[in-house]
Amino acid sequence: MKKDVSRTTAVLTAEDIATIVGLRGVEHILDELIDRLRDALLTFDPDRVHSPARAGFQYEEPEVGLLEWMPAMELGRVAAVKTVGYHPRNPTRKGLPSVMATTSVYDTATGQLLALLDATLLTALRTGAASAVATDILAVDGPLSVGVIGCGAQAVTQLHAISRVRPVERVTVLDTDPVVAASYNRRVAFLDRPTTVVNPEGDTRLLADVDVLCTCTSVDVGKGPVLRDGEHRPWLHVNAIGADFPGKQELPLPMLERAVLCPDLPSQCRVEGESQWVQPDRIGPDLATLVKHRSSYEPYRSVLTVFDSTGWALEDLVVAELFIELASREGIGSTVTLQRTATDPFDPYALITP
Amino acid sequence: MKKDVSRTTAVLTAEDIATIVGLRGVEHILDELIDRLRDALLTFDPDRVHSPARAGFQYEEPEVGLLEWMPAMELGRVAAVKTVGYHPRNPTRKGLPSVMATTSVYDTATGQLLALLDATLLTALRTGAASAVATDILAVDGPLSVGVIGCGAQAVTQLHAISRVRPVERVTVLDTDPVVAASYNRRVAFLDRPTTVVNPEGDTRLLADVDVLCTCTSVDVGKGPVLRDGEHRPWLHVNAIGADFPGKQELPLPMLERAVLCPDLPSQCRVEGESQWVQPDRIGPDLATLVKHRSSYEPYRSVLTVFDSTGWALEDLVVAELFIELASREGIGSTVTLQRTATDPFDPYALITP
Repeated sequence: MKKDVSRTTAVLTAEDIATIVGLRGVEHILDELIDRLRDALLTFDPDRVHSPARAGFQYEEPEVGLLEWMPAMELGRVAAVKTVGYHPRNPTRKGLPSVMATTSVYDTATGQLLALLDATLLTALRTGAASAVATDILAVDGPLSVGVIGCGAQAVTQLHAISRVRPVERVTVLDTDPVVAASYNRRVAFLDRPTTVVNPEGDTRLLADVDVLCTCTSVDVGKGPVLRDGEHRPWLHVNAIGADFPGKQELPLPMLERAVLCPDLPSQCRVEGESQWVQPDRIGPDLATLVKHRSSYEPYRSVLTVFDSTGWALEDLVVAELFIELASREGIGSTVTLQRTATDPFDPYALITP
Repeated sequence: MKKDVSRTTAVLTAEDIATIVGLRGVEHILDELIDRLRDALLTFDPDRVHSPARAGFQYEEPEVGLLEWMPAMELGRVAAVKTVGYHPRNPTRKGLPSVMATTSVYDTATGQLLALLDATLLTALRTGAASAVATDILAVDGPLSVGVIGCGAQAVTQLHAISRVRPVERVTVLDTDPVVAASYNRRVAFLDRPTTVVNPEGDTRLLADVDVLCTCTSVDVGKGPVLRDGEHRPWLHVNAIGADFPGKQELPLPMLERAVLCPDLPSQCRVEGESQWVQPDRIGPDLATLVKHRSSYEPYRSVLTVFDSTGWALEDLVVAELFIELASREGIGSTVTLQRTATDPFDPYALITP
């Protein structure tokens, strides 16, 4: 991109993002994103890609919520900061998604804001794509029986993404809210897979009957796990995406203790993910290592594995850049001259006319 | 504000900000901001206003730079994250200000983005306002002889802000870049104060001759101090705003050691400011304490004081809210429906039409 003082900021609204997805087809977008993420992990160099631990505000007023910032930088090129709100009462009280996010992309040559994107759908897509990358390496060959615990927005992209890397034969789902569970079928109807809803007491039955399990709940701190331990297939692979804060836990401890845990970002998972509950020696290869040495980890397909997905800022950078590129190719989105700068960089008042 | 799913994001561009300032008059805006900041400090309650330590990326490619995020939240009401780039080569290589910033304001009830503002002028204004608040409490009564070391963009708002709390009789300035020093007079011509430029070897002469000194340099890590120690008036007050990173230093150590240091945010100043160079017992009251107990600190007017201004996210929240309010009152700025959300918060694909 040309570096000049009048460079504008690209703005991609929720509607622009949806238009891009609609134009290209949601399957195609997800496949593209899975490929991009896999490529980014394959070439991931921690000396070049920096993603410091996220931090945030946690509060109980005016609503129970969490507002976090997740920065990532590819050295010499670009930086992104996703700000993500997690307000579990949004859906029922306000008709809003519990996870709402925006991503800002900066030019590290000058500090200018290159782009601002609504990242609510992007977050759901990239979280799905990460599970797809992990599932593709760690799950038994298909066709699969898939279980879903927690049937909110993330559950849609989890199932969808898994279906892009393995044939899915049938789906069993569970949610503590019967209304949310009941509407899941309609929301994933486009996948055309037989979906059975079980009630919360059916957790062990669900567990016993699946090859891949996704836990994507809004579990509160200290309120986990979200299912009881029980019999399961020896090769069960779990994508655990709901634990993303100190004290959160989705899986029962005995299950974690007999699994190989594969964190997305180990330093973050030890603090916020399922990894916080086990001894360090239970923690296996991280997602980038799995992708880089895929064939070495083939044997993991026959044992219990857990992808500890806390959400990695690198994923947000990858999905933001994909959509910026697609928007530019399709001519979608708008621009704003947010940072028009005066001719004299030493005069802060140069733009002001009395 | 009404909490509904179609709420838009207010966008205030650099031009909008300049228009607001032009409409109200730059003096009036600065007075308003100084008042607001003083009020925020007077009522500052660390249990209600949270501003965790800022963090950032520091890099040497593609340019020497720093990109930092500065979050602040007033519990129960609102949160803001300023992202600020510091690229010291911007002015000479790109014709851009070295400090470029944007501020995002979030609703902590839902996580929605309420407003996005260019914060380049806002940063210069709030840094000036903070120095004005400190100077008003700590400097000798006017009329003052004011010194300025480092004549970039911040030097304009520093002098301007000081002139709002004390009569300024004359100004002496110094910059290592003679071109920047030479243009300062023109940039502060609106203040109509006799301004003398001295060359860098004149640092001790400048020091000896002023009541208030502002150091607002782009000093590099490990390259300070920016002036030599020397004779000065016993009541000298210094606003030191250039040290804002570990290893940065503007003032000579003996001077710091005989001064009372007043940090803006003590935890941050001990890591990034002039406070990092002295023993903890040299660090005096912080800015909020000074404002709250103003009369107790009257005696400080007769001794050497240093306002250690690293830049506090609370100041960014105050200036952002002031401009959002003024924009709304004056009908300036635009809105974007960034986060339009579908009717079903559990369906991430609801907005997509194939």
